[in-house]
Amino acid sequence: MQETSQNQQLSHLNESGEAQMVDVSGKQPTRRQAVAAGKIKMSSATFAAIEVGNTPKGDVLGTAKLAGIMAAKQTANLIPLCHPLPLHQIEVQIIPDQELPGYQILATVTTKAETGVEMEALTAVSVAALTLYDMAKALEKGMVIESISLVSKTGGKSGDYLAIPKPR
Amino acid sequence: MQETSQNQQLSHLNESGEAQMVDVSGKQPTRRQAVAAGKIKMSSATFAAIEVGNTPKGDVLGTAKLAGIMAAKQTANLIPLCHPLPLHQIEVQIIPDQELPGYQILATVTTKAETGVEMEALTAVSVAALTLYDMAKALEKGMVIESISLVSKTGGKSGDYLAIPKPR
Amino acid sequence: MQETSQNQQLSHLNESGEAQMVDVSGKQPTRRQAVAAGKIKMSSATFAAIEVGNTPKGDVLGTAKLAGIMAAKQTANLIPLCHPLPLHQIEVQIIPDQELPGYQILATVTTKAETGVEMEALTAVSVAALTLYDMAKALEKGMVIESISLVSKTGGKSGDYLAIPKPR
Amino acid sequence: MQETSQNQQLSHLNESGEAQMVDVSGKQPTRRQAVAAGKIKMSSATFAAIEVGNTPKGDVLGTAKLAGIMAAKQTANLIPLCHPLPLHQIEVQIIPDQELPGYQILATVTTKAETGVEMEALTAVSVAALTLYDMAKALEKGMVIESISLVSKTGGKSGDYLAIPKPR
Amino acid sequence: MQETSQNQQLSHLNESGEAQMVDVSGKQPTRRQAVAAGKIKMSSATFAAIEVGNTPKGDVLGTAKLAGIMAAKQTANLIPLCHPLPLHQIEVQIIPDQELPGYQILATVTTKAETGVEMEALTAVSVAALTLYDMAKALEKGMVIESISLVSKTGGKSGDYLAIPKPR
Amino acid sequence: MQETSQNQQLSHLNESGEAQMVDVSGKQPTRRQAVAAGKIKMSSATFAAIEVGNTPKGDVLGTAKLAGIMAAKQTANLIPLCHPLPLHQIEVQIIPDQELPGYQILATVTTKAETGVEMEALTAVSVAALTLYDMAKALEKGMVIESISLVSKTGGKSGDYLAIPKPR
Repeated sequence: MQETSQNQQLSHLNESGEAQMVDVSGKQPTRRQAVAAGKIKMSSATFAAIEVGNTPKGDVLGTAKLAGIMAAKQTANLIPLCHPLPLHQIEVQIIPDQELPGYQILATVTTKAETGVEMEALTAVSVAALTLYDMAKALEKGMVIESISLVSKTGGKSGDYLAIPKPR
Repeated sequence: MQETSQNQQLSHLNESGEAQMVDVSGKQPTRRQAVAAGKIKMSSATFAAIEVGNTPKGDVLGTAKLAGIMAAKQTANLIPLCHPLPLHQIEVQIIPDQELPGYQILATVTTKAETGVEMEALTAVSVAALTLYDMAKALEKGMVIESISLVSKTGGKSGDYLAIPKPR
Repeated sequence: MQETSQNQQLSHLNESGEAQMVDVSGKQPTRRQAVAAGKIKMSSATFAAIEVGNTPKGDVLGTAKLAGIMAAKQTANLIPLCHPLPLHQIEVQIIPDQELPGYQILATVTTKAETGVEMEALTAVSVAALTLYDMAKALEKGMVIESISLVSKTGGKSGDYLAIPKPR
Repeated sequence: MQETSQNQQLSHLNESGEAQMVDVSGKQPTRRQAVAAGKIKMSSATFAAIEVGNTPKGDVLGTAKLAGIMAAKQTANLIPLCHPLPLHQIEVQIIPDQELPGYQILATVTTKAETGVEMEALTAVSVAALTLYDMAKALEKGMVIESISLVSKTGGKSGDYLAIPKPR
Repeated sequence: MQETSQNQQLSHLNESGEAQMVDVSGKQPTRRQAVAAGKIKMSSATFAAIEVGNTPKGDVLGTAKLAGIMAAKQTANLIPLCHPLPLHQIEVQIIPDQELPGYQILATVTTKAETGVEMEALTAVSVAALTLYDMAKALEKGMVIESISLVSKTGGKSGDYLAIPKPR
Repeated sequence: MQETSQNQQLSHLNESGEAQMVDVSGKQPTRRQAVAAGKIKMSSATFAAIEVGNTPKGDVLGTAKLAGIMAAKQTANLIPLCHPLPLHQIEVQIIPDQELPGYQILATVTTKAETGVEMEALTAVSVAALTLYDMAKALEKGMVIESISLVSKTGGKSGDYLAIPKPR
């Protein structure tokens, strides 16, 4: 409790001055993998149009996947305190979900490095969803991106993480 | 109906070949503004820690805002078929919401150009949310980004758009 | 003639010192369009594998097109003395050519600006070709990129340009 | 005075929350030019080695100039609240100064836009100086970059600016 | 044959969905080197002007070399499924060839990593050639970039590769 | 002495052709750290306004720090012959100095790699200073960035370096 109040004071004194990219040079490079998920909801009409490929800007899902993969490589440029890392695998899946209706998006990123790739996986999902929106926005501007979250992470000293699945 | 089946065929023939950045050179440059919103949900404990500034990586909200602003400028590099445009204003607001608990994120982007800035506003919100996650993920990995959507767009020939507010 | 010898001397004196991004602020923004072309040659077996979609990294042509479009937007970052411009259209076409065998690549870029977009069109063709190589290189490392050149440019005070077609 | 204390309070409340890219969409695009300067000081031996081209990484001055020009185009990606603008001219000069000993660096940037290009000119000077350091650091690590400042700005409603020259 | 038709079907089903950055985290980091080549053909007059340094935009060859080196570092951002890697050497050579007339371009890239650097070498050659075009295009728009190909690759489990030299 | 004259000749012959990113693949990856410093001088009034947070663009110091951290990650894209490396720590400190008046800026960068991170630390300081200028330039255009230099470097075969402190 005392610590909290000290930190609070410090924070007031130097206004965001704490921001720093933490030192991971003492950690061991190990294989690390993160999986993130998200979804985009839309009208049945938009979903149907995408499914049959009837969209003004071309291949919606292929473009969204590639954008997600390429965005994962930009993570350290987008997220201020992320470490720039080599990446050894990026995979983005986009799965149609008639019930949403819309698409489930899943990204898996793997590296051998001193720190994890959670942000890379989350960034891949986010940009894939944004691109899907962009490719179909002439059909519907009211699409909503939902539930971007970390599914799991493995590797590294802090231990594995697996999100507890929630009922839909 | 016939059109749909033709498009479907075409799409099958050339596999994502349709992807193109549409020609906007015939449009007039006018003032255009887009507002996008989203939110990030977390535990009460994480929310409290951020509110008092007790976070390991430093100023969470200031960093997230800046990341959102800077990401808006990267939109055309992230979203494959987005037009690169000059941008005349980018504003990101992050508002604490005790009831979530978590933060509401709002981004406003303005330009004078031949096409709109919806993707810039949505990208700003997404990256602000991702950065907020990154800054607090040592406290909680289960935070979830929700409801990224377009609030409004004004300017341009296709007319204004205002999302119908939904009950919470 | 005297000028040549003076330039030569100057160039020797200051070693690459001349490099400069010329001033185009006195020019009028007009609609400008450039078309560039190129091709990639490969074995019949590789060509057949791409045509049937039997490639280890996935959709070759769709990925190459998107990469070309996205690269056009990076032109001013890649070509040191290129002016950064808004771009109003980017289109990349990849046409199978059984006789090469391989693919013809065509890029069209349009803007309303003070200077032309030849380099953007040439960059789109080059990176589309490089990506096509990357997507198929597990099948054949001996593919060759050929004949990257400007097909035409229109708009601007220096007048239109149309390459004289050559017999194949 | 009251305003100051209000601002101060506000700043304490939202910790760096004020950061915003101000709206320039109401301003007129006019021709704007900025000139910035700086210098790098080194030992006589390093200066002599650069002057005769005896440096391990190759052409020091040509590389530094190009780096400065290319960096000007990255300004809006480096400086968080800078507006992304088209740029119509970038010129970097590097002038040997025996008395320093070292080099004077001068950058001129021109645009027709709604806001000025001071940051672009200052960024060009800074990165040219950093590159000069990089190209010669095998010879001397103690070089110092000095006096990076705005020389002049013209155009725009806020009026022209000309730095008062100081005695050396 | 059956496999081909299955793949074709699959490809039809998910439209470019296969695109993925393959997992190399199981591979060993070893020293890998790739050499790529290409050339640019021009008129005798343009060649002569470049050789004597009589070109409007300044040092053609120095600028093209630097652009090639810098582009190699952008490879993973340009080629969608390329892995981002540390790079340990980039060298670009541009050799005048009176007989073309024009320039031979050669790029060598070295790394210690889990996968090769063929695309980095090919990208360096391509962007060096594009920059050479840009630097001299005021003299001649009809220059043509030819024969961009992989010369050799060494290191890695898939074995070395050496292109069979062809008669000119 | 003879070598100098040979190099000089060579340099004249190929005009900046020497520029190359040297091969570090034979070096061992070890922990390397660099510290760089710089300062920005301003009027007492500007200094006071920043200290109380009374600045039109928001949090000056927090924004400058983040910009410095993010710029360190762009070093290999800004400095032509810098090696792209993973970075394991970036820290930027900005310390008010009433006597300047202005701010002292200090950046520390750490990696485990084949070559050092001096340029990353110097780039972080430079861009933090430029951002500080940008955030306060509405108050004073005459601010000057001074004394950007390397404070120390450790790790690597070439030995440690420590700048000799100078009297102020």
